[in-house]
Amino acid sequence: MSRRIYFDNAATTPIDPLVFEAMKPFFTDHFGNPSSIYSYGRESRLAIENARKKVASLLGAHPAEIFFTSGGTESSNTAIHGAVHQLGCKRIISSKIEHHATLHTCEYFQKHAGIELEWVHLLPDGHIDLADLEKRLSSSPKKTLVTLMHANNELGNITDIKAVGELCKKYNAVYHADTVQTVGHYPIDLSQLEVDFITASSHKFHGPKGIGILYMRSSAKIDPYIHGGGQERNMRAGTENIYGIVGFTKALELALENLASEKNHIEGVKNYLKERLLKQFAGIVFNGDTQDNSLYTVLSVGFPLNDKTEMLLFNLDVNHVCVSGGSACSSGANQGSHVIQALNLPPQSTVRFSFSKYNTKEEVDRLMDVLGSVA
Amino acid sequence: MSRRIYFDNAATTPIDPLVFEAMKPFFTDHFGNPSSIYSYGRESRLAIENARKKVASLLGAHPAEIFFTSGGTESSNTAIHGAVHQLGCKRIISSKIEHHATLHTCEYFQKHAGIELEWVHLLPDGHIDLADLEKRLSSSPKKTLVTLMHANNELGNITDIKAVGELCKKYNAVYHADTVQTVGHYPIDLSQLEVDFITASSHKFHGPKGIGILYMRSSAKIDPYIHGGGQERNMRAGTENIYGIVGFTKALELALENLASEKNHIEGVKNYLKERLLKQFAGIVFNGDTQDNSLYTVLSVGFPLNDKTEMLLFNLDVNHVCVSGGSACSSGANQGSHVIQALNLPPQSTVRFSFSKYNTKEEVDRLMDVLGSVA
Repeated sequence: MSRRIYFDNAATTPIDPLVFEAMKPFFTDHFGNPSSIYSYGRESRLAIENARKKVASLLGAHPAEIFFTSGGTESSNTAIHGAVHQLGCKRIISSKIEHHATLHTCEYFQKHAGIELEWVHLLPDGHIDLADLEKRLSSSPKKTLVTLMHANNELGNITDIKAVGELCKKYNAVYHADTVQTVGHYPIDLSQLEVDFITASSHKFHGPKGIGILYMRSSAKIDPYIHGGGQERNMRAGTENIYGIVGFTKALELALENLASEKNHIEGVKNYLKERLLKQFAGIVFNGDTQDNSLYTVLSVGFPLNDKTEMLLFNLDVNHVCVSGGSACSSGANQGSHVIQALNLPPQSTVRFSFSKYNTKEEVDRLMDVLGSVA
Repeated sequence: MSRRIYFDNAATTPIDPLVFEAMKPFFTDHFGNPSSIYSYGRESRLAIENARKKVASLLGAHPAEIFFTSGGTESSNTAIHGAVHQLGCKRIISSKIEHHATLHTCEYFQKHAGIELEWVHLLPDGHIDLADLEKRLSSSPKKTLVTLMHANNELGNITDIKAVGELCKKYNAVYHADTVQTVGHYPIDLSQLEVDFITASSHKFHGPKGIGILYMRSSAKIDPYIHGGGQERNMRAGTENIYGIVGFTKALELALENLASEKNHIEGVKNYLKERLLKQFAGIVFNGDTQDNSLYTVLSVGFPLNDKTEMLLFNLDVNHVCVSGGSACSSGANQGSHVIQALNLPPQSTVRFSFSKYNTKEEVDRLMDVLGSVA
């Protein structure tokens, strides 16, 4: 096990032992249904409402704006469905490099609800062309949903969520930001942003899988996407995943508590890998914004395409290195992800390295030894 | 803690320690994203596919017919949405005593998709009037979804799922059965049933919360309800809740392995409570089918309405007895559940007792002592 090098933290992360400890009592002792009014139920309810308050305060939101879901994908589906069906959006502006949770949901409503779907222009480095976004927003009186992710999961590019929000406000558009790669990795103060919906999954920041949040600005009133009991103040039916909620919250708390030092550590690992790659491989490129507005957790590398690098992901796996070609959805065969394709880059063998607090420079050294033989 | 008496197992159950043990390695060591192709990912993938095979074999289904979801509520939403939007159902026949996950979803489509919604007639004991169901099915050429739960969560009544399935087949209707109260408590062999969709939540049989399944007959092809990555063979997007999936499966395995002996034990507890209640309270009634076709896990009791029993749930809680007035959604104030209301019973103070393998006759004795002072 210890031989493995795990550089795919944008796909998922191991649970922090402190998070697991926080979850444990809810598996065993505090198992009550939070909707039950007796003691066992009230304990669970209290834990959930305390979690909601904590998450809200960590994100600059009001507790009534935080809803627990089964993950970022469900959250994005809920937001986009609500924007179309309750907020009256007839048009969606998105980008071709969004996560599939956004892309496929938008395409579904394009096909089945007659929604107009437009792609914002991308700059050569993969950033959103804000001028193009404004042109599109100003070009139609139709109520519009803008859905643009905060940080791209394959490139690491960070979109200026404040600027997009202000454009959306100016043109009375609804704004959904997939923040799955930034919540827990980047300080977010929703009180300073003009965003209607954001999403998160705790397994991206050392919390459990199967749990996420939807932030819904108090002014954005939508119906539940999953109907049933009155859980989550009638916004998300289904018996609450109490361990997940407790785990999400503990993970977010730890991540933000230690953000500065972890960022510093992870950036050190990432930059060390960049340096070593540049020294060892002629013709190597880094995809996306390689300067300022990029996640410290992600490095998208284009290896020169040749006989060896065509099999790169396979051979890295054989050598116990865990990385991906794109997002987890498109990992495996190096067939190029929809994100890399959208950038129209010269042919390359793409590897996304993504880092967590558990990675070390020593692992980079071991990786470089492996790359020496397989790339 | 040990002073509490937990008789609300139809709301939720404590996790079996063996289930938690089975889940643990996936929190810590095997954390890979199942969609990733490298070793960590493959371990998770293997665990999920083995779980799917096991669940399928325990239910008489094909593995390709089992989809993991966030719980029974999401499963029912998915099935009903799919029946309306992909299978062309223009009419829904349901009953007024369904769980809210069914009721509210049907009402949503009635309101927003123009679906006709009809309520099947109920017999005095709360059973479905099968003759009325057939009359309704034969009365319209419109493609119809029948959604009727297998066992009622408040009364315990078990519907003849085989007979309903055969009627649905005869009239070419789609059949969705909410089996949340029977999976893990009742042998189900889907190969012998004409049912298109069934649902389950593992927290009803000593598994974790936040995880469930949707069984979808191979002939019933619907779109995903949650769009995004290609998880669950493109039927349910979102990174898989691997611990939940492993826990669901272990819980189902244990439940069915020990079904006969646990049923025997639980039935003993239930019948002992019935006897003691009948001896101690004049005018007490049992709601629903009190004879043959009722869950051994549920006993719905109508206490004579008086000053004392109006506060019964409250006083039971004060005395550390956990029971509910109806489902968890409507527990608390004894305001009468939609199920009890639908039966038009004489006024009563309703208490649902629901049992698990962890309950004992000794707990019934202690409960009777409490009831002696509060009822």
